[in-house]
Amino acid sequence: MSEATDADLPSAIGAMFDSMWATLAPIGRSPSSGGYRRFAWTSVDAELREWFVAVATDRGLDVQSDRNGNVWAWWLPPGHHGEPAGAFVTGSHLDSVPEGGAFDGPLGVVSAFCAVDLLRSKGIVPTKPVAVVAFADEEGARFGVACVGSRLVTGVLDPDRARGLMDVDGISLAEAMTRAGVDPTNLGRDDEVLRRVGTFVELHIEQGRALVDVDAAVGVATGIWPHGRWRFSFTGKPDHAGTTRLVDRRDPVLTFATVTLAARQHAEKAAALATFGRVLVSPNATNGIASQVDAWLDARAPAQGILDEMVGDITAAATRQARLDGAELDVACESLTPLVVFDEATRTQLRAALADEAVPELPTGAGHDAGILAAERSTGMIFVRNPTGVSHAPDEFAERADCLRGVAALARVMASWMER
Amino acid sequence: MSEATDADLPSAIGAMFDSMWATLAPIGRSPSSGGYRRFAWTSVDAELREWFVAVATDRGLDVQSDRNGNVWAWWLPPGHHGEPAGAFVTGSHLDSVPEGGAFDGPLGVVSAFCAVDLLRSKGIVPTKPVAVVAFADEEGARFGVACVGSRLVTGVLDPDRARGLMDVDGISLAEAMTRAGVDPTNLGRDDEVLRRVGTFVELHIEQGRALVDVDAAVGVATGIWPHGRWRFSFTGKPDHAGTTRLVDRRDPVLTFATVTLAARQHAEKAAALATFGRVLVSPNATNGIASQVDAWLDARAPAQGILDEMVGDITAAATRQARLDGAELDVACESLTPLVVFDEATRTQLRAALADEAVPELPTGAGHDAGILAAERSTGMIFVRNPTGVSHAPDEFAERADCLRGVAALARVMASWMER
Repeated sequence: MSEATDADLPSAIGAMFDSMWATLAPIGRSPSSGGYRRFAWTSVDAELREWFVAVATDRGLDVQSDRNGNVWAWWLPPGHHGEPAGAFVTGSHLDSVPEGGAFDGPLGVVSAFCAVDLLRSKGIVPTKPVAVVAFADEEGARFGVACVGSRLVTGVLDPDRARGLMDVDGISLAEAMTRAGVDPTNLGRDDEVLRRVGTFVELHIEQGRALVDVDAAVGVATGIWPHGRWRFSFTGKPDHAGTTRLVDRRDPVLTFATVTLAARQHAEKAAALATFGRVLVSPNATNGIASQVDAWLDARAPAQGILDEMVGDITAAATRQARLDGAELDVACESLTPLVVFDEATRTQLRAALADEAVPELPTGAGHDAGILAAERSTGMIFVRNPTGVSHAPDEFAERADCLRGVAALARVMASWMER
Repeated sequence: MSEATDADLPSAIGAMFDSMWATLAPIGRSPSSGGYRRFAWTSVDAELREWFVAVATDRGLDVQSDRNGNVWAWWLPPGHHGEPAGAFVTGSHLDSVPEGGAFDGPLGVVSAFCAVDLLRSKGIVPTKPVAVVAFADEEGARFGVACVGSRLVTGVLDPDRARGLMDVDGISLAEAMTRAGVDPTNLGRDDEVLRRVGTFVELHIEQGRALVDVDAAVGVATGIWPHGRWRFSFTGKPDHAGTTRLVDRRDPVLTFATVTLAARQHAEKAAALATFGRVLVSPNATNGIASQVDAWLDARAPAQGILDEMVGDITAAATRQARLDGAELDVACESLTPLVVFDEATRTQLRAALADEAVPELPTGAGHDAGILAAERSTGMIFVRNPTGVSHAPDEFAERADCLRGVAALARVMASWMER
């Protein structure tokens, strides 16, 4: 956090923000790199959940966990009885990628609590239900599928498939939840929970530099590029690296290398994104030719047609190369998220609430729980400026002053929604 | 093992061979793949050592462990007193690469015991000391350096460096030995042990198809190609795979891919071997651009000059590509074994002992404990035919009849040495 002033906000709100940030900061942080490793249903995840409950309880908010592992803190109108319905919900997630940054996810949760603090400090009492949410396992770092909590609650992810997802140690999601003391038998679409949500607004650190380019502290999302993950498995022939003639080899590392370079070329051609960031070589012996390479393609594009064409081109290149190299290829789509366009009504409302400053609109290539909720509910996103654009890495950063401007923007949106 | 007859040997010897093989077979074998994972100083390694002691004890041989973790079983002349000296030593190792085969190493140990059985069955009593040896950690699969036991006993590997070698879990060799109940403080050159060795003959499955091509069951090694391992570390910039523009990326997976393909081309040009079989990507997240790729180059060539030139060319290509990609490169040589030519006297003796059959001579690209001992003692190797040439993989295989021909050859060499 920089030393910037919090001129727009009462200093008590800045102090609230700092206090939440300070208690959250050590959880799951690597002492050497400063990067975070906050994976779903681990002991670190349990600490994050305890943090959420403590912060909500300090504020007198009621905490509920839904049956898909998402946690909700409720700020209800005085005298409210019965089940809340049509609430203003804001929040994000607390988990991280491996060696992730501090902001992706947590900034949205901290800002949500802080926006409640800000409205309360102005003497505002809610006229409609408000909730702060932390969705479970947004990054999918442990079990390979992103946005598990929001996909389950909306029914997009099949509960049996979810329960069977495996981490690298062969522990299933069901087993991991059970070990964390949570019953995995009741996963799946939850209409009761969905009925509680009127609008969902997720505040998130920007994961690029569009706001830097236009010199704006906050922006509003137009939508999320269609994107997905494909597992490419190249199977060759394991053999001795010191004795097998080059012509006798079927080395899947070479096939993977060629395909990686082809993927980059196809991404350039499509003006889209293609990345192999996760690669597993088997058996991974220095003096052995590999038997198999599993590599995950992360692909994103401005439109579904472009995405389909690019992934098709990469798959065709891989098929050709595998045939040339005598390798076998298996390609499996592990997740696919269609184009999300946030609804015009919510965007209009966001723009109106933020009308006193220039708030640019921008798309993103990153998936979010808001993208999943958008199929069910009025949904929008607020981005906070990221000076370097770095994300999913320890250097991910936003200035404190920009974070507080994000809080102020979110509070204005929350207040405008109450007045509607 | 095939159903081939053991026509050249008493059937009792074939039965001894089968019995040893059967008790060794389950230790460290993966139930799914059939491949072996027999890493140094693990519980599997302890089982292998127990197996060695049991087999030696069954035969009334005295077992000694030296202070570098190698185990020796002594067949001494009747009435022999004091320290053995100038012995005929044969054996190999019992550890494996990850997902290794059953024969690489164990065939030499089983054949050594079986050769003793065969001479005894013919009523031969040793006139000079004979030993069966199993060297520790030949493959280097756990700590990254091959032939640790023979390098330590000959002083080629510095004991402090050895103690500090780390496995992937951050456990040092010293710690692993301590956990296995072995004192690591006394590692290092052991002249007392070396004085006991007159000649060392290692029998080994061939790791290529040269014997298949000339239709011979056994062959004699001329020497071992110079070879080594180099760690290439490519460091880029971790970032979000879904939001970082292609032009802003410094993705070390792409740099590694280009270098892998270049290494293959340089190996073809040099008529040598270059392999990247071990690759670690960090942080290895599906939706994150990698921060670092560590990849180990295994390089081998018929002559030192060719090896130096090839590794130099690959390093130069990597340096160029890293600069182009904005990545940092660090290259470290982790081990280097010069050309070994087995001494002419031992080869002549091997050829003479095996004169009743056509025994071809052949070089190998694979490192062996015999290659380390060759700098100190009269040393030779016998290879046993491998029908597919596959090695360091579950499909590694030799016909039972060929294995027994190997035993017969080794026994003839042992007997001829006694008569010398």
